[in-house]
Amino acid sequence: MDSGRFDTAVYARRLAAAAAATEQAGLAGLFITPGYDLRYLIGSRADTFERLTALVLPASGVPTIVLPRLELASLKESAASDLGVCVRDWVDGDDPYQLVAEALGGAPAATAVTDSMPALHLLPLADALGVLPVLATDVLRQLRMVKEAAEVDALAKAGAAIDRVHARVPEFLVPGRTEAQVAADIAEAIVAEGHSEVAFVIVGSGPHGADPHHGYSDRKLQVGDIVVVDIGGTYEPGYYSDSTRTYSIGDPSPDVAQQYSTLQRAQRAAVDAVRPGVTAAQVDAAARDVLADAGLAEYFVHRTGHGIGLCVHEEPYIVAGNELPLVAGMAFSVEPGIYFPGRWGARIEDIVVVTENGALSVNNRPHELMVVPVS
Amino acid sequence: MDSGRFDTAVYARRLAAAAAATEQAGLAGLFITPGYDLRYLIGSRADTFERLTALVLPASGVPTIVLPRLELASLKESAASDLGVCVRDWVDGDDPYQLVAEALGGAPAATAVTDSMPALHLLPLADALGVLPVLATDVLRQLRMVKEAAEVDALAKAGAAIDRVHARVPEFLVPGRTEAQVAADIAEAIVAEGHSEVAFVIVGSGPHGADPHHGYSDRKLQVGDIVVVDIGGTYEPGYYSDSTRTYSIGDPSPDVAQQYSTLQRAQRAAVDAVRPGVTAAQVDAAARDVLADAGLAEYFVHRTGHGIGLCVHEEPYIVAGNELPLVAGMAFSVEPGIYFPGRWGARIEDIVVVTENGALSVNNRPHELMVVPVS
Repeated sequence: MDSGRFDTAVYARRLAAAAAATEQAGLAGLFITPGYDLRYLIGSRADTFERLTALVLPASGVPTIVLPRLELASLKESAASDLGVCVRDWVDGDDPYQLVAEALGGAPAATAVTDSMPALHLLPLADALGVLPVLATDVLRQLRMVKEAAEVDALAKAGAAIDRVHARVPEFLVPGRTEAQVAADIAEAIVAEGHSEVAFVIVGSGPHGADPHHGYSDRKLQVGDIVVVDIGGTYEPGYYSDSTRTYSIGDPSPDVAQQYSTLQRAQRAAVDAVRPGVTAAQVDAAARDVLADAGLAEYFVHRTGHGIGLCVHEEPYIVAGNELPLVAGMAFSVEPGIYFPGRWGARIEDIVVVTENGALSVNNRPHELMVVPVS
Repeated sequence: MDSGRFDTAVYARRLAAAAAATEQAGLAGLFITPGYDLRYLIGSRADTFERLTALVLPASGVPTIVLPRLELASLKESAASDLGVCVRDWVDGDDPYQLVAEALGGAPAATAVTDSMPALHLLPLADALGVLPVLATDVLRQLRMVKEAAEVDALAKAGAAIDRVHARVPEFLVPGRTEAQVAADIAEAIVAEGHSEVAFVIVGSGPHGADPHHGYSDRKLQVGDIVVVDIGGTYEPGYYSDSTRTYSIGDPSPDVAQQYSTLQRAQRAAVDAVRPGVTAAQVDAAARDVLADAGLAEYFVHRTGHGIGLCVHEEPYIVAGNELPLVAGMAFSVEPGIYFPGRWGARIEDIVVVTENGALSVNNRPHELMVVPVS
């Protein structure tokens, strides 16, 4: 398994920034179990579940990683040893929660936990600490949301790779084939085009396109189908691609074409709205207003987008009520959709990065409804 | 995607039993987010993360499932609609934690959460409830640990499938090939032999075999290598296989052969110790004592086993200190190993089910060190 990660200096900078943010938040430290935060902070892909592994990051002082003895070897894949992180291992029968609490000094103090920490660990940890932690998201949000140059580069490579897959999708969309067969071809193409892993494949044909979270099924493609293809994978060192295009098998009806063109304008409007200082809610509204003006508001049933990085869904969420101002370096999806239950649906999705000059899109396939010719 | 699940009656019985256990524990209800407990209780494969989906199971009364509106369609894949579960959907902008709290009546009460619930949901839910929940494991443990006949059947089919893979492993172990190449062949065989998904593949050759959690690497197999092959997948409707055998490329040295034969006796002793009324700790001790008598105690660095079902690691854990008495229907691994850092390692693992007459093993490949002939 490839341990692909950035240079140690990247993680050293992140650990220092996270400690500073922890202090500024008035917290004594963070507890980070395996997941995207641990990967972000020390490049670790550990995925222990029931045996506790946790990075203890104090507001000041040396971080400690507490982990089962039999996971010691896996540490080599992370940047932990180069970072001078203190290592405390434990064996079956020990109380790892006490070790974690002691690594922060042992006295009850305000702390925070990674938001993926399972209840299995959070509840006994709260017991050992004597106080309920808060979510580390509030501390790590700004750090994780604003991508460094190396992260933007990884997202751009992931975006180019998924664009190459979309370029091949029309050849897979042959009437009579099932969504599942198309999905299998796409999965193979996702890896062939440079991703390390397939993250998800949605092939929503005809009425299935009206369910935003349909996966794929045994439904056979038919001439006249509108097909939503929403796909993504991970690209080393672990950044996600995520792009949706909508295809028409044969020419669409005039109604469909008209409603799709409204959706295309909505997606464009949201991308055009992106720049530093604009709020996430304003980007959402930019897409929503175009659809509302055309009487399609009720068919756009989800938020406009989600942040993306080491996690396929992360902050910032592009949603009504999120008054977070965008800053350069944030990366998120812009993906309005329209869904007509029992009939058809469409969605257009690009990942964009906020720059001083507006949105930089890492996805660059045409946004038009892509007509797949039928013989 | 196959929605493979048991008959609705299975889930109706489980929901009723879980509600009864909840009442007996003096709790007002359980909150179950996506994961193995949700799959166990209603056959749902939902895997939403940042948008809350939760089954609210009161000690008495009708269960409610709270989920994002755009996940409504996914409910059809579960048994929820046939079970008469009340559905409350929410859209971006709503407060789903309030909906969940209200589904249980709204007044502060003692409750429990599935142990996989992420902090992201647990902390705001605790806020909405006004009281910190406990782990539902304590309520669901007995239910989840003791497998029904249909579950034993699924585990047996999974076990037979992974045995067929092990039967093919010798042909993959060719000197000069890398662990990663062997792992790719094994992954393909896991699916070809009937699993729906590959769960994990460990190919630990030579010194890599001394790391119990090594995955696979670019190390090339050599004549004289001892190779630990620990593999598993999921078998519809979602039950895991997990079996380890150790291979020798060419004849082993007399020392290795002798130490391996001790390990084989240790594994046999633990399997032979399994019967109702014996504790998990006693099974662990049965393996450990054989190794200790031969002076190998320090090389057996992990517990003897873990429960298995819809989760690859679950209760009962076969570990020192676990005084849980075994009862018929429990299923777990028996997998002692010996690890000599920098040199070699070996492990033998079967999944066994407790019956009135002792252990029924779902894995039935020979336990001897399997010598792969070299030309």
